Amino acid sequence: MSDSDLPAYPKLARNTVQRYGKPRGKYDCKTIHEIVNTTQVLHVSFPTPDPTDPFPAMIPMLGFMASYESQTDISSPLDLYLHGYISSRLMRLGQTSPNEEEEEGLPLTIAATHLDGLVLALTPNSHSYNYRSAILHGYATPVEDAEEKLWAMKKITNGVVDERWENSRIPPTKTEMTSTQILRVRIVDASAKVRSGGPSDDRADMKNDDIRAKTWIGVVPTWTMYGTPIESPENRVQKIPEHITKYITRENEAAEKKAVAAVKRK
Amino acid sequence: MSDSDLPAYPKLARNTVQRYGKPRGKYDCKTIHEIVNTTQVLHVSFPTPDPTDPFPAMIPMLGFMASYESQTDISSPLDLYLHGYISSRLMRLGQTSPNEEEEEGLPLTIAATHLDGLVLALTPNSHSYNYRSAILHGYATPVEDAEEKLWAMKKITNGVVDERWENSRIPPTKTEMTSTQILRVRIVDASAKVRSGGPSDDRADMKNDDIRAKTWIGVVPTWTMYGTPIESPENRVQKIPEHITKYITRENEAAEKKAVAAVKRK
Repeated sequence: MSDSDLPAYPKLARNTVQRYGKPRGKYDCKTIHEIVNTTQVLHVSFPTPDPTDPFPAMIPMLGFMASYESQTDISSPLDLYLHGYISSRLMRLGQTSPNEEEEEGLPLTIAATHLDGLVLALTPNSHSYNYRSAILHGYATPVEDAEEKLWAMKKITNGVVDERWENSRIPPTKTEMTSTQILRVRIVDASAKVRSGGPSDDRADMKNDDIRAKTWIGVVPTWTMYGTPIESPENRVQKIPEHITKYITRENEAAEKKAVAAVKRK
Repeated sequence: MSDSDLPAYPKLARNTVQRYGKPRGKYDCKTIHEIVNTTQVLHVSFPTPDPTDPFPAMIPMLGFMASYESQTDISSPLDLYLHGYISSRLMRLGQTSPNEEEEEGLPLTIAATHLDGLVLALTPNSHSYNYRSAILHGYATPVEDAEEKLWAMKKITNGVVDERWENSRIPPTKTEMTSTQILRVRIVDASAKVRSGGPSDDRADMKNDDIRAKTWIGVVPTWTMYGTPIESPENRVQKIPEHITKYITRENEAAEKKAVAAVKRK
């Protein structure tokens, strides 16, 4: 199946990858969802309510992509759920704006980025990163339905560490439920940009034996590492539970493998 | 010297940390510059030129903070330099806008975020991350001066790996100089948000012996890891140079140490 046959987000002017768009731009759901769902911190940007303030607001947030209504898999369009606090003033703003489109919620731009490697080339200009990044646009509204909220809270917690929800004190209290804000973002469009492979140098430099003889070229694979868990002085459980140790081992191994595999991939 | 005596960025309405502002919000230059200058990928957001498009643009970019004019140290206000491509159409937009303030350049919001640890508490609601994040606002203009551009390009390259500039083919060709875009961002305001320490649970949960007996609490330290360099099939230098191996060892050790130290710090 070629890339263009995969279920994808619409390719609009604003989400079309411009620089190196041909080899690196991706619009299929699977690539985008995998990037988002393996990113521990998303960056979320939105216009501020003050029309004289030219700077968009930006906050780091936790989130994941899934569908609450249907059990669609990762290859079909999904909603993005965010955990974190956007002031109710801003959320209301989205809903009461005179702009018809904005009535659908607060317009958000969401970024998820993985650094996979430092690409060291013959000349500074040809240096690069291996990376997988996704940018999504959509309208956010707060999740009001208690069941959907609980479902999202469980997914957020188990996104931090596998099975953490089941291995901590649940269900949340009434106060915890009301103090938690979950946003559902209906995605309008999205794109990913992926760079893999080794260094790619200009022909003139590659033909220069002097430079070739003294300049090491290759890739330093890069990934997010989880270290040895450090217990709280208040902890009473002697052995670190398997849901934590297994998660750390699996994630570290998979992340290193992925960063190394990216070097070989064109 | 107390926090408030340190050189700091102005605390305006838009950059005042709202949630947990008291323990976590920081405005001093040193904290903010250290976060930015140790981040391999920054997230940059700006308004799009299309007034009917409600979504801010967002791109991952490389950058660093320094002062070209004066040899100020990291504790004083600095400029932010970005390497990467923002279309000249957008850059012109900033300069020809009717809004007087925007004539100073394109308004950018820049985020730098380090994840330092997964904080596992008794209940999902008390789970958290240890992190250091910075958000900066400023006006970007392209660097036209050749010497300043060269200085910034060298700093960008040596920010990826120590001494990489000196260890690759320099100086850049004329084409490389003109095809590279460097932006200088004059910072208007900035803030950092830092969370450290172990889990902090509610008193009711801490008094519950059943929950305490079965729920492990503590922190999983987290950092960016650099793996074993993988040479390009075209590489002709037998031994991986010291400027690379030393950088990897030092960065990995420092990053792990920092993530572990954050757990003990209040």
